[in-house]
Amino acid sequence: MSSPDQPVPFTADDYRARMTRAAESADAAGLAGVLVAPGPDLVHLTGYRLPAETERLTLLVLRAGQDPVLVVPALEAPDAERATGAPALTLRDWTDASDPYALTAGLLDGQGRFGVSDNTWALHLLALQQRLPGTSYASLTAALPMLRAVKDAAELERLTAAGAAADAAYEKILGVRFSGRKETEVAADLAAFLTESGHSQVDFTVVGSGPNGAVPHHEAGDRTIERGDMVVLDFGGLKHGYGSDTSRTAHVGEPTAEEQRVHDVVREAQEAGCRAVRPGVACQDIDRAARAVITGFGYGERFIHRTGHGIGVTTHEPPYMIEGEEQPLVPGMCFSVEPGIYLPGRFGVRIEDIVTVTEDGGRRLNTTSREMAIVE
Amino acid sequence: MSSPDQPVPFTADDYRARMTRAAESADAAGLAGVLVAPGPDLVHLTGYRLPAETERLTLLVLRAGQDPVLVVPALEAPDAERATGAPALTLRDWTDASDPYALTAGLLDGQGRFGVSDNTWALHLLALQQRLPGTSYASLTAALPMLRAVKDAAELERLTAAGAAADAAYEKILGVRFSGRKETEVAADLAAFLTESGHSQVDFTVVGSGPNGAVPHHEAGDRTIERGDMVVLDFGGLKHGYGSDTSRTAHVGEPTAEEQRVHDVVREAQEAGCRAVRPGVACQDIDRAARAVITGFGYGERFIHRTGHGIGVTTHEPPYMIEGEEQPLVPGMCFSVEPGIYLPGRFGVRIEDIVTVTEDGGRRLNTTSREMAIVE
Repeated sequence: MSSPDQPVPFTADDYRARMTRAAESADAAGLAGVLVAPGPDLVHLTGYRLPAETERLTLLVLRAGQDPVLVVPALEAPDAERATGAPALTLRDWTDASDPYALTAGLLDGQGRFGVSDNTWALHLLALQQRLPGTSYASLTAALPMLRAVKDAAELERLTAAGAAADAAYEKILGVRFSGRKETEVAADLAAFLTESGHSQVDFTVVGSGPNGAVPHHEAGDRTIERGDMVVLDFGGLKHGYGSDTSRTAHVGEPTAEEQRVHDVVREAQEAGCRAVRPGVACQDIDRAARAVITGFGYGERFIHRTGHGIGVTTHEPPYMIEGEEQPLVPGMCFSVEPGIYLPGRFGVRIEDIVTVTEDGGRRLNTTSREMAIVE
Repeated sequence: MSSPDQPVPFTADDYRARMTRAAESADAAGLAGVLVAPGPDLVHLTGYRLPAETERLTLLVLRAGQDPVLVVPALEAPDAERATGAPALTLRDWTDASDPYALTAGLLDGQGRFGVSDNTWALHLLALQQRLPGTSYASLTAALPMLRAVKDAAELERLTAAGAAADAAYEKILGVRFSGRKETEVAADLAAFLTESGHSQVDFTVVGSGPNGAVPHHEAGDRTIERGDMVVLDFGGLKHGYGSDTSRTAHVGEPTAEEQRVHDVVREAQEAGCRAVRPGVACQDIDRAARAVITGFGYGERFIHRTGHGIGVTTHEPPYMIEGEEQPLVPGMCFSVEPGIYLPGRFGVRIEDIVTVTEDGGRRLNTTSREMAIVE
């Protein structure tokens, strides 16, 4: 049984399959194995979510043809044992009086090359390098960039639900008052709507009004929104462990002809990016498709970021839709398509949907209107 | 002007002095410099606090006799410029189209050995190792473990205020009802009291009742607290950027003779640990002093963790009070003394104060009664 509000839980078998696939991908890439520290890779592979990485080593060791092993501090073993993926792996715990690097070294091939999760602490990596001088290491983004990129059906269900929840928040924000209120107040409304629609974590609520909309990194500030402002809205977070991320650009009252034209160009670029999505197309071609429209209308210099990023258990991950990324799209990949135009000191426009690659094209997970909404 | 609720702010000069001291300590230890990623070391050295480390490189480079340089993504440069320590350093920003590792490599000695903050991502360390094969690296905990360990007067003032705030929360929690309520409900009260007393961040609120108290890492669960339960309370967080961490063990109604005896043993062990604190004593001797008492009463096997950890801009940092740590105590160091006894399936007891090393002994920053509190 499954609904947007209660997805079918992942099982130990799901995690076992993911770990097997990771170990086999590593083997195929010439790696002796994969080492995974706490963080999104570990959540994806085992369901084990720690509040934060610490100086105490927790490390998942995956090697082709061998059972997965999780090295874990004895104090935290009870938590690890409760992870959904725990039945699919062997726990090896260590106490404060023992050496976790010796324990880990015993699980590795002393001459092998290993992929390590990007966010593994230098403290741990340096200790392994010192103990096993014959080993070498590559970050997972460099060695196996597509490890989490292709989503299975259960993951797609969650991403779809997260997208629908973000869309519900967007529909609600159009009903609130913008003019005369600070960006931070509208951002707080947006956060509340995301939570109401089932997000357990709100990662960002960009409200970029007037000139602030021209700074893509701007979140929300003390500026009071005025009649006549363009307002970039970009928001998302996690629902049932999977990310949402969508942008729309609204206007307070009627836009000028120039504002409407810029918005039309971004909308056409975003359409072109989404239309280009199908299996086999390179990631950089999605960027090129969207960028060509903006450049064609003379705004190329004002589109100052990549076109998109993958999404899954985090809101930013490979694959990246950027010039130079030749990775071909594969059914099940999920990523943003989010071109924008930024006119410094004046206003910005960005439109963003999450898109998943299907057998013969792409499907958007955000379905609210991409026309410029007029708000009060 | 200064009060517990509004300490004197740190200045750019404070951060300049800390960066100079770090660079000179590194030089004295034979290192060519110190590399600091976002996290507590960066907060301590520059006042620059990022929400989280990401795949985009931010790195502080400190070298003796040279101006500090902060490598920062262009999108985040405006945030970095607002950090209190920014006037004491040179910002070098990079855009998505450029290579931040080439930029960083240009700041380093290609044959040098560098200290890197423990939590630096493997992604970044591996990229530097690849670009500068002649360099070598050591974690800051290994190379300069005492970098943040000795607190100055302004830091001590903040830690003292954080301790007093945690004590205020403890006094309040003794007044709430325990029996018939879930651990998570009492933990929520504790979190609210910590916030009321000025904590900006609550890091942990352990409520370990009955058998859950015998699992030191247990936080708070669905178990309903009953009359006759021992309850381990261990809580803390950050106030004005500095940590609190204290534990007391309460009892719902009157304890049995055995419960009282175990509590007495832990209290005596904690006293012995605190009494042993003075300059020149090795960290491991604090552990030994507390452990000897527990072992003497036959519970040695049931004290299953180290006796303490340092505290400052984080709630866990060097120095560690653990067998094998020969670092001598120095005035200004701050750490926990927190022995415990854990009887699996039955109950646990832990008592914890933060202690600072003075010129001739130690001073506790937590001063609530260490007797077993009887709660309802």
